[in-house]
Amino acid sequence: MKLIETLREGDHVADVYLCKTRQQATSKTGKEYENVTLQDCSGMIDCKIWEPNSTGIEEFGPFDYIYVVGEVTTFQNNLQLNIKRVRVARSEEYRSEDYLPVSENDTKVMYQELRNILRTVKNQWLKALIDRYFDDPAFEEAFCRHSAAKTIHHSFVGGLCEHTLSVVKMCEFYCTAYPYLNHDLLITAAAFHDVGKLKELSNFPANDYTDDGQLLGHIVMGSELIGSACRRIPGFPHRLLSELQHCILAHHGEYEYGSPKKPALAEALALNLADNADAKLETMKEILAAARNKGADEWLGFNRLMESNLRKTGEW
Amino acid sequence: MKLIETLREGDHVADVYLCKTRQQATSKTGKEYENVTLQDCSGMIDCKIWEPNSTGIEEFGPFDYIYVVGEVTTFQNNLQLNIKRVRVARSEEYRSEDYLPVSENDTKVMYQELRNILRTVKNQWLKALIDRYFDDPAFEEAFCRHSAAKTIHHSFVGGLCEHTLSVVKMCEFYCTAYPYLNHDLLITAAAFHDVGKLKELSNFPANDYTDDGQLLGHIVMGSELIGSACRRIPGFPHRLLSELQHCILAHHGEYEYGSPKKPALAEALALNLADNADAKLETMKEILAAARNKGADEWLGFNRLMESNLRKTGEW
Amino acid sequence: MKLIETLREGDHVADVYLCKTRQQATSKTGKEYENVTLQDCSGMIDCKIWEPNSTGIEEFGPFDYIYVVGEVTTFQNNLQLNIKRVRVARSEEYRSEDYLPVSENDTKVMYQELRNILRTVKNQWLKALIDRYFDDPAFEEAFCRHSAAKTIHHSFVGGLCEHTLSVVKMCEFYCTAYPYLNHDLLITAAAFHDVGKLKELSNFPANDYTDDGQLLGHIVMGSELIGSACRRIPGFPHRLLSELQHCILAHHGEYEYGSPKKPALAEALALNLADNADAKLETMKEILAAARNKGADEWLGFNRLMESNLRKTGEW
Amino acid sequence: MKLIETLREGDHVADVYLCKTRQQATSKTGKEYENVTLQDCSGMIDCKIWEPNSTGIEEFGPFDYIYVVGEVTTFQNNLQLNIKRVRVARSEEYRSEDYLPVSENDTKVMYQELRNILRTVKNQWLKALIDRYFDDPAFEEAFCRHSAAKTIHHSFVGGLCEHTLSVVKMCEFYCTAYPYLNHDLLITAAAFHDVGKLKELSNFPANDYTDDGQLLGHIVMGSELIGSACRRIPGFPHRLLSELQHCILAHHGEYEYGSPKKPALAEALALNLADNADAKLETMKEILAAARNKGADEWLGFNRLMESNLRKTGEW
Amino acid sequence: MKLIETLREGDHVADVYLCKTRQQATSKTGKEYENVTLQDCSGMIDCKIWEPNSTGIEEFGPFDYIYVVGEVTTFQNNLQLNIKRVRVARSEEYRSEDYLPVSENDTKVMYQELRNILRTVKNQWLKALIDRYFDDPAFEEAFCRHSAAKTIHHSFVGGLCEHTLSVVKMCEFYCTAYPYLNHDLLITAAAFHDVGKLKELSNFPANDYTDDGQLLGHIVMGSELIGSACRRIPGFPHRLLSELQHCILAHHGEYEYGSPKKPALAEALALNLADNADAKLETMKEILAAARNKGADEWLGFNRLMESNLRKTGEW
Amino acid sequence: MKLIETLREGDHVADVYLCKTRQQATSKTGKEYENVTLQDCSGMIDCKIWEPNSTGIEEFGPFDYIYVVGEVTTFQNNLQLNIKRVRVARSEEYRSEDYLPVSENDTKVMYQELRNILRTVKNQWLKALIDRYFDDPAFEEAFCRHSAAKTIHHSFVGGLCEHTLSVVKMCEFYCTAYPYLNHDLLITAAAFHDVGKLKELSNFPANDYTDDGQLLGHIVMGSELIGSACRRIPGFPHRLLSELQHCILAHHGEYEYGSPKKPALAEALALNLADNADAKLETMKEILAAARNKGADEWLGFNRLMESNLRKTGEW
Repeated sequence: MKLIETLREGDHVADVYLCKTRQQATSKTGKEYENVTLQDCSGMIDCKIWEPNSTGIEEFGPFDYIYVVGEVTTFQNNLQLNIKRVRVARSEEYRSEDYLPVSENDTKVMYQELRNILRTVKNQWLKALIDRYFDDPAFEEAFCRHSAAKTIHHSFVGGLCEHTLSVVKMCEFYCTAYPYLNHDLLITAAAFHDVGKLKELSNFPANDYTDDGQLLGHIVMGSELIGSACRRIPGFPHRLLSELQHCILAHHGEYEYGSPKKPALAEALALNLADNADAKLETMKEILAAARNKGADEWLGFNRLMESNLRKTGEW
Repeated sequence: MKLIETLREGDHVADVYLCKTRQQATSKTGKEYENVTLQDCSGMIDCKIWEPNSTGIEEFGPFDYIYVVGEVTTFQNNLQLNIKRVRVARSEEYRSEDYLPVSENDTKVMYQELRNILRTVKNQWLKALIDRYFDDPAFEEAFCRHSAAKTIHHSFVGGLCEHTLSVVKMCEFYCTAYPYLNHDLLITAAAFHDVGKLKELSNFPANDYTDDGQLLGHIVMGSELIGSACRRIPGFPHRLLSELQHCILAHHGEYEYGSPKKPALAEALALNLADNADAKLETMKEILAAARNKGADEWLGFNRLMESNLRKTGEW
Repeated sequence: MKLIETLREGDHVADVYLCKTRQQATSKTGKEYENVTLQDCSGMIDCKIWEPNSTGIEEFGPFDYIYVVGEVTTFQNNLQLNIKRVRVARSEEYRSEDYLPVSENDTKVMYQELRNILRTVKNQWLKALIDRYFDDPAFEEAFCRHSAAKTIHHSFVGGLCEHTLSVVKMCEFYCTAYPYLNHDLLITAAAFHDVGKLKELSNFPANDYTDDGQLLGHIVMGSELIGSACRRIPGFPHRLLSELQHCILAHHGEYEYGSPKKPALAEALALNLADNADAKLETMKEILAAARNKGADEWLGFNRLMESNLRKTGEW
Repeated sequence: MKLIETLREGDHVADVYLCKTRQQATSKTGKEYENVTLQDCSGMIDCKIWEPNSTGIEEFGPFDYIYVVGEVTTFQNNLQLNIKRVRVARSEEYRSEDYLPVSENDTKVMYQELRNILRTVKNQWLKALIDRYFDDPAFEEAFCRHSAAKTIHHSFVGGLCEHTLSVVKMCEFYCTAYPYLNHDLLITAAAFHDVGKLKELSNFPANDYTDDGQLLGHIVMGSELIGSACRRIPGFPHRLLSELQHCILAHHGEYEYGSPKKPALAEALALNLADNADAKLETMKEILAAARNKGADEWLGFNRLMESNLRKTGEW
Repeated sequence: MKLIETLREGDHVADVYLCKTRQQATSKTGKEYENVTLQDCSGMIDCKIWEPNSTGIEEFGPFDYIYVVGEVTTFQNNLQLNIKRVRVARSEEYRSEDYLPVSENDTKVMYQELRNILRTVKNQWLKALIDRYFDDPAFEEAFCRHSAAKTIHHSFVGGLCEHTLSVVKMCEFYCTAYPYLNHDLLITAAAFHDVGKLKELSNFPANDYTDDGQLLGHIVMGSELIGSACRRIPGFPHRLLSELQHCILAHHGEYEYGSPKKPALAEALALNLADNADAKLETMKEILAAARNKGADEWLGFNRLMESNLRKTGEW
Repeated sequence: MKLIETLREGDHVADVYLCKTRQQATSKTGKEYENVTLQDCSGMIDCKIWEPNSTGIEEFGPFDYIYVVGEVTTFQNNLQLNIKRVRVARSEEYRSEDYLPVSENDTKVMYQELRNILRTVKNQWLKALIDRYFDDPAFEEAFCRHSAAKTIHHSFVGGLCEHTLSVVKMCEFYCTAYPYLNHDLLITAAAFHDVGKLKELSNFPANDYTDDGQLLGHIVMGSELIGSACRRIPGFPHRLLSELQHCILAHHGEYEYGSPKKPALAEALALNLADNADAKLETMKEILAAARNKGADEWLGFNRLMESNLRKTGEW
């Protein structure tokens, strides 16, 4: 299979790709054609079907894996694939993991590392809560395949696991540097802080906001999920639950970022700082990776998240 | 019983009042004394016990109903009660309802009016939810005795019921004026929008924020409570629940007012507008009532909630 | 006459429409053509004159009613009318009311309903002011044909009347629910709160900001107009006028929305709340109406006014 | 007469001062006394009447000129005048100008200078407007005795004239430096920009916000006054009036400072810049003057208007 | 040489222009072509090279002066130059000053006027600092050829000199109007306030942000430069240097405009006011100049800097 | 020596303390007395000298170490020391380190740990810069005795060293977790990020803002200091210096916190995140330490820095 990021003008293509979008269009001269977007793990490419009614063009739709035959051209400095023939692929013709953006780290390894850190939690109630989820293979399966975002940082398969691991490790560091923090509360809150994203974002290949995601948000859904889970653990202290839910509710740190409460506990503050630091440093990593072909002294333009022009650091 | 708002300099007092606070103090000359605040339904008065170790001063604490003997003086233009004797009152000596700020409307009548409007909800699931709560005498008892705030508007016994009724009636008006609104969803959301205040504020006489109130807030607790309740109603449509929870989560309208979501549904918008309008018009009512002795042309000073100097409207 | 919203690809057109805009253009191949926008009460359509110098193309300009002959095609998923022949229509060939967006309610009926409510104002001075305007047929004519906005809510013929009626009715509701409000002042202020829009927006078909509208704004012009009118009513109490003007000046509620004063009187606050509620609920109504062909579970995208993604409420 | 700023501990006082406030009070020991504030052109002093019922204490009230006998003491590092005897002064016993804060410049001279600059306005309509006001002795009298503020910059007799002159002179400078500005419009707008303060602030000695000042504000009142005046000048061009009113309405530059419109014309922008510059540089002048006894290297504390700690400039 | 602003459709061009940008492109039909922008002192024009591989098209790049042969057409209402032949021009074929935007005033005259004002500074240390820079021909050369901005006000050759002169003159006016200001400190600070722009912006023809400009900014670089210079003047008082640097650091007035300190000295405040006034009044001048062909009653659209719709002032 | 935090009502005191402030006052009865504040490393106490003219009261001033004799009383629930005799102490009577707030960690050990980490910097230029400072005993002495703030976090002797070490260690953690960060640049920037505080705050015991601190601030002074130092290292790459200065300038992250630039480099972002995290987690630590006597379920009130009510975490 030829990866999309390796395609060049003039290439002949005859391979399976994931169809992300499909739309009808009409040219200025009144001719009907179609706009299609194809995706694999390395990126996306815009395509045209100039003869949608020709015999080679069979029926297909978004999120179908399709076998396409065509040629690569350039239009306004972008590559474009002109599709001559297309049909839905048979399941034995492709492996879905080749068509989705994935973490550059092995998700299984990351999950194991996360699991090991969580074993350091000694409080019996928090331990019970952690085991109920992280020992459940169905949870592991879902947790490892999910992203942590639709578009920005960690928007790939395994993203939720990778981001959670990073935040948990930073919280571990905080516990060493600031021993007054309650280790068990902080590590547990970090492990579950984005668990609501399992409901906020739909599974790949769509990876888009769900209805509940837009109406309720992952912060409230995560807090409610933990509330239900803890109330099913007999004897779970009410106050401990409230503090755990508070950490989840406050982890965005500011009202305008969707947290209904600002951090009132030291652990809630620490979780907010760790989540924010990982989000920003991972975003910066992805921005710099995307600009890996630019010169060491090139500015990368204004970034809305960072509210700043960004630049690669030099080599002196 | 002599109401606090009727006390005047020189009055002799021998009656039962509710003790709100009690603190020890030392005068500049090194003498120990005590600061006490007493409350009844008409207001509060600052008191001093100048001889805390004299025989007439028996043991008591905050939220005790106490029988006090003393005299009213003035200090820096405020009335002050010098307590000579004090003891905890026996339960037959007072009726607790005389000592708390109460709605000027009959709570039973308001609850009945609210109940009648809620009967217009025809959707079977919403009706089931309403009946489960509003037909429960324990819920009625709690709902009717609760306030809707610690200090500002509706901070009295019955305040939660009165505010909820006002908001429900305004939503009824909206349904008539804007028929595109979904009546059943809007009325149900209005009925439950502040139900989390039952947990956010402790019961009278304390009427103060609870631990959960500060950590989680009434918006999230109300949404979670409705979530639990609906999931216990077999067949309750998931999407209807999400929309109902969204209305509760979004009813403050803005992130900075503690809503983790902004209104995305017309009914969520309408509920937000009704809640805001009643809060502001009731606050204005209480401000003007407190200034009832001021002249028609007096300004009432800057009000932080309204961010404006306020004034009585003239009589021309 | 064929309504624009009913046109379909391939239709032949030979009818009168209102010309909204006309601009010359040059194709990439250097050929001159013209862009024209036509409007009727059901919507607008983009048009091309590919042969502007052909004999069938007579002289015309913006806001002319023109008789056009042409054919409907599609271009980039939008309909487009290719005009073959065009001439200015004779006045007997069209009725101008067919070409403007209009309220779905009968303006005469709305005006009568408004007039009836205003008769409940008993204060002699306010009554005199109301009668001077609302009994004047020229005022009625202007008031009923005007919009309340250029683009957003109530931007149609009759919009000013419809919005004013809605606000007046909500203020009536407030007077019942909060009896401490001064009925006569509030209803009068509501009746006149947007009267400055008669000067801020030009008449249809332009319905655009006037010079004075941009330099002074409807809030200040409305206040000044009421000031002049009241000073011509002998004996009108100065303080009543100040309060009435204050209500008009403060009705946007916030400095950043163009109000030079924040509400200081209960009636000014109530008017602000009613104006805001009608503006938002009417905007929501128009958004949902425009999306009437979308599925019940479709999101409608981010709305700048509401600062939120919006969605239709479900049917369960 | 002994100026208040020259009083020292132990001084005996027997002179006429202006009474600014008078309030009853009760000491901790239950004794009644009175708090009084006296003012002259050099400052204010707090006073006590420890024996309000003694025979030497006659009737008087705020804004009376009173003859007092008493002694100066210190209390908590502030001077305090203990009043032994007091009576209302006879009009021949004092000159009111000795009791009010006044401009350090001669108001007549400033008015003349302003009048001379205004003669450079050649446009016949603007000239007519200026003459109608500035040639009117009653206007001159009012304009010269008024302040430009209640507390901050230019809050003294003559302050309105002094501030207007400063702004007009800065606008003259702008016309030289930026010749594209329309001289006649800018100078006229500058002359009248704060004319609404004649109605917003009451006359001295009160110099406090009027009812209309709080309800309508000097910006809107000034614009309305100019509107009325110009409409009484036959033939005054409508557009010129709109532009003049726009300059007045926009002279605070930002919505949050009470301007209902932001500057749209170059002259409105220039007026806003000149008004802002004079307000800030005069405020700084008054702050530094008040700190004239402080050392050259002392910081003057945080100033809310400037949102900064302030300091005297050094002498090197 | 034919100025770009005088070119009209159909013109034949055979002249030298400055190449600002050059980019390859591909048409929809797959044909390669090139986009080029040419500039002279009167403006810019978009160009196309439809046959980039033809023999007449020689090698060239951005900031080359090139001799082009071609024809002017229109495309979508804009002029466009179709280049047939192009080659790099020889240095004797053009004068670079004809190709850059220049001040409409003579830079030499402005520099002399600035120099004369600076001679009024009498403080020995400030005088030494001024002389060290303004008597240095290399500094004069750089200072006179630099702009004061990349795109907005004063973005032309001589812009830095013109802006500095304007600010210095306004500060002189302030010293007269507010004699408490320290003349020498204010005039010196004004002279150097934007000196950091020599490093923030690269020389013409690029006139773009430098690396240091983006990383450090002209405010900090200007302050550091003055710090180094003064420390090389033996005996320069430390405090005077701190105050001078403070004026430079605070001259944008607000944190969000890049000043790390808010004005704490009267002279820092005055400099901030003068800089702001010149920036805004010059921007307005350039906006009006660009709209010189518009009618006297046309609105100029929303301007982001002024946050307002702008309009020409009328002629009455 | 008796530590101030151990004093109790009735204690007799005869010891040396540091005088922080001294002020004259007059009682209501006209009697002169003095307010004095004494400090040692454990806290502060308010004192009174009721007989300032008695023979035992010798001359002394702020920041003198004084030997006092007196008795501890309580006034309004606070302890107060009534001073009977006082004289300036001889240098052999006290050790100044007993009178200042100090880090709970050994500064020498922290400095050594910091020094060891800095040895991991391998870039020759950055290494040269570090050695020039951190190998200089005078720098070590100053760096170890300084605080990092006047009042909030790290406002004690050794605070600058402790805060710098924390930030450096967090940056080390970041370099491990996000290997794309440039280790040498980030660690060096962290080591010097607050070096300007040596000039912003005066030495203990005053520990107050200096003149330069208020006029220029530690951010700009730190950047300028590094600029001067690097320019004295022959061959130091210009671009490396710019990036290092950028990290220092941007380390507050937002304009409104005094940074003239927002982070544009990954290392500047990381430094900002580490500085912010340590500041907040240390502040929280100090708040909780100050509340160590409060019950586990007590709320600690609203904290302005955190913009939230704060609470201890429970023990379950």
